[in-house]
Amino acid sequence: MYALIRKTRDGGELTREELFSLTSQYVAGKIPDYQMAAWLMAVYFRGLSERETADLTQAMVASGDTVDLSQLPGVTVDKHSTGGVGDKTTLVLGPLLAAAGLTVAKMSGRGLGHTGGTLDKLEAIPGFRTGLSPEEMVAQVRRIGLTVVAQTGRLVPADGLLYALRDVTATVDSLPLIASSIMSKKLAAGAQVIMLDVKTGSGAFMSRPDDAFALARAMVAIGTAAGRSVQALVTGMAQPLGLAVGNALEVKEAIATLRGEGPEDLRELCLALGSRLQVAATGGSLEGADATLRRLLTTGAALERFRAFVSAQGGDPSVVDDPDGVLPQPRAQETLLAPQSGFVQAIDALKVGDAARALGAGRLSKSDKLDFAAGVLLTVKVGGLVRAGEPWARVFAADDRRLAAGTALLETALSIGESPCRPEPLIHGSVDPTGAETRFEV
Amino acid sequence: MYALIRKTRDGGELTREELFSLTSQYVAGKIPDYQMAAWLMAVYFRGLSERETADLTQAMVASGDTVDLSQLPGVTVDKHSTGGVGDKTTLVLGPLLAAAGLTVAKMSGRGLGHTGGTLDKLEAIPGFRTGLSPEEMVAQVRRIGLTVVAQTGRLVPADGLLYALRDVTATVDSLPLIASSIMSKKLAAGAQVIMLDVKTGSGAFMSRPDDAFALARAMVAIGTAAGRSVQALVTGMAQPLGLAVGNALEVKEAIATLRGEGPEDLRELCLALGSRLQVAATGGSLEGADATLRRLLTTGAALERFRAFVSAQGGDPSVVDDPDGVLPQPRAQETLLAPQSGFVQAIDALKVGDAARALGAGRLSKSDKLDFAAGVLLTVKVGGLVRAGEPWARVFAADDRRLAAGTALLETALSIGESPCRPEPLIHGSVDPTGAETRFEV
Repeated sequence: MYALIRKTRDGGELTREELFSLTSQYVAGKIPDYQMAAWLMAVYFRGLSERETADLTQAMVASGDTVDLSQLPGVTVDKHSTGGVGDKTTLVLGPLLAAAGLTVAKMSGRGLGHTGGTLDKLEAIPGFRTGLSPEEMVAQVRRIGLTVVAQTGRLVPADGLLYALRDVTATVDSLPLIASSIMSKKLAAGAQVIMLDVKTGSGAFMSRPDDAFALARAMVAIGTAAGRSVQALVTGMAQPLGLAVGNALEVKEAIATLRGEGPEDLRELCLALGSRLQVAATGGSLEGADATLRRLLTTGAALERFRAFVSAQGGDPSVVDDPDGVLPQPRAQETLLAPQSGFVQAIDALKVGDAARALGAGRLSKSDKLDFAAGVLLTVKVGGLVRAGEPWARVFAADDRRLAAGTALLETALSIGESPCRPEPLIHGSVDPTGAETRFEV
Repeated sequence: MYALIRKTRDGGELTREELFSLTSQYVAGKIPDYQMAAWLMAVYFRGLSERETADLTQAMVASGDTVDLSQLPGVTVDKHSTGGVGDKTTLVLGPLLAAAGLTVAKMSGRGLGHTGGTLDKLEAIPGFRTGLSPEEMVAQVRRIGLTVVAQTGRLVPADGLLYALRDVTATVDSLPLIASSIMSKKLAAGAQVIMLDVKTGSGAFMSRPDDAFALARAMVAIGTAAGRSVQALVTGMAQPLGLAVGNALEVKEAIATLRGEGPEDLRELCLALGSRLQVAATGGSLEGADATLRRLLTTGAALERFRAFVSAQGGDPSVVDDPDGVLPQPRAQETLLAPQSGFVQAIDALKVGDAARALGAGRLSKSDKLDFAAGVLLTVKVGGLVRAGEPWARVFAADDRRLAAGTALLETALSIGESPCRPEPLIHGSVDPTGAETRFEV
């Protein structure tokens, strides 16, 4: 291990064998944390080559169980978002792709965040279970083409161990380590075709587009090296996605979107991600795939698939018809009024996220309990016109104290100006499976 | 600690309080090794400022006991060499300075190396004890002005812990960490006036002069910041110092030098170091100090102080009159003959050191037992003339196998050419207590 630390420290490249040995021995407890910490810090400063990053990721995958989806019918697809505020695309995209005939057997983590993760959002539906056994998972996918379950600790144990160490040694912010951590879990989860949604903007992990593209390229290269079809979109997270931020609120907005309604940005992002996945999985044109998916939204086919999905995992399927009657409701709410008239210049996603967390929608530490009903519901987007004294958002919480904290934070998120204003692009560009980058002018 | 790692990682400066807290909490076991390892690697890449390095060193000193020499008569002086091949200056300089009226209460480490350290060399004298109690040490210094003892583990425990961690995390080669490690022990040992002998050349830790000057400046700055009088010479280690390499062989050469004989380079280096120490301690001119010290060598005063010193620490004082009769003698020896005639272009110090270690004079691991009698005795120096078939070195070992290994290595050290050749300078330059650097043309 000493020789490996030194090699990385001096800018040398570790071989595939060295990276496999390093990973397996660390998981086996044969490499002490202090040596791994020194190596991680050397990686922080020196980086890893594309080949090293791909090999490290495969070594991490090999450290634990992998999911074998090869016996399932259809093409198995997966989507991963690097996380943002109001991002409920999985709730829309899963049923939509399943309705289009693709196979979606998705594993999701929980983690910390401004709001819960996909698992938490689904668990806002009374009765919904995310802890399925492998047999239950396979049976459900055969029946309805869709499942979303909690990732088990036996998948990529190296990632759990490395992440915990990175978290206390200031080595989280390293592109190859971030990319390998995300991709190890995607590869282990077994899908053949993977779409990455890399967010950029204040509410994203990578606030600058260039960093987001670099992360997208790194992750695509890992997936391609592992023989999967992987591509990425870099998408905007300067303002929240959609209008709802908070677990039950987002479920309700996802249902509206599956009904062909819902906010335009959320729908268009789901279609952009979904149509590309469809083409990668089954061929055809992007226009054709887009038209197919739009039809599945307007005919109600996607919504019915969502109903079947909720029902299959133990949730109350009547949430589809009466979200407010089924989902947890807040005890306290307040309406925020625009302090002046003008065009909305910004609704800072990070600040909205902080507000949602203060309201009870997200976790600061793993032991924090979520309030599913808490959150923010915007009534405007960037570029829209507001009038002084009229509502621009509502906040929901369990009590007045949380309501006050969330309101105070949310008020700092809004900027109003006199000039008309265009929002940041919804989609900044794409990275195709060969690593070629296209930047869009939207 | 996380915040400190991150600050250093991002190029920020830690405060004095932060460095003291980091050090004391690490020694108290409250900071885990993996966080310290990450910090050390961040230091490897980012460095530390002069102020940070001085504060870290003082924090390390404060982690353990310090030696209080303030009750001793005279000015307390110390000398530290960064280590080289054939470096027996302490054996000469200690008695010489004591004879000049200075107070030398020196602590020395053991460590690994091509030959033993100063302690090992002294222990080649039958009966010599280096494990004196503090009371014995003080009593001896009051009586003869000189003692050389083994450093105890209670002095700078932070250095022991940090060095062990650096050793297994590839963070040894960091200038501020090297400088703070050396200087923490010098400061803890209590001398008021300190002379550093920073070696450069193939046989030295810092092979390039620029690196050696940088280390010298860093160490002087630490000492000056701590209120001590510290200066440095940067001296040559391209070829061994003197002609003898090996523990008993070096004792014999030191005795010859104390008698006013011995090789010129060893004598001149001791005088250069000693006269500067003398001036720093008691004032006066460099020329005056040089003349005084030369006289102490020729009158036998320095040699008599050495005899008293050996006797005081339990060694056989007749070693002074009959080194070969008292010191361990080798069982096997061999003479190396010059393969061609010409001028000696190089006697590579590193290769001579490797040969000495193979002969049994040095340690590769802490458990290796030294053969005091083993080593190399050169009969030429760089620039000298040799004739084909005539001796240029003798090697000594306990058996023929070791003799063969050492001979094979030593033969690669010698380069002979037709052109006359000047050796590298004995003294490359100096760094005075203000940090000002002077490069000599010797």
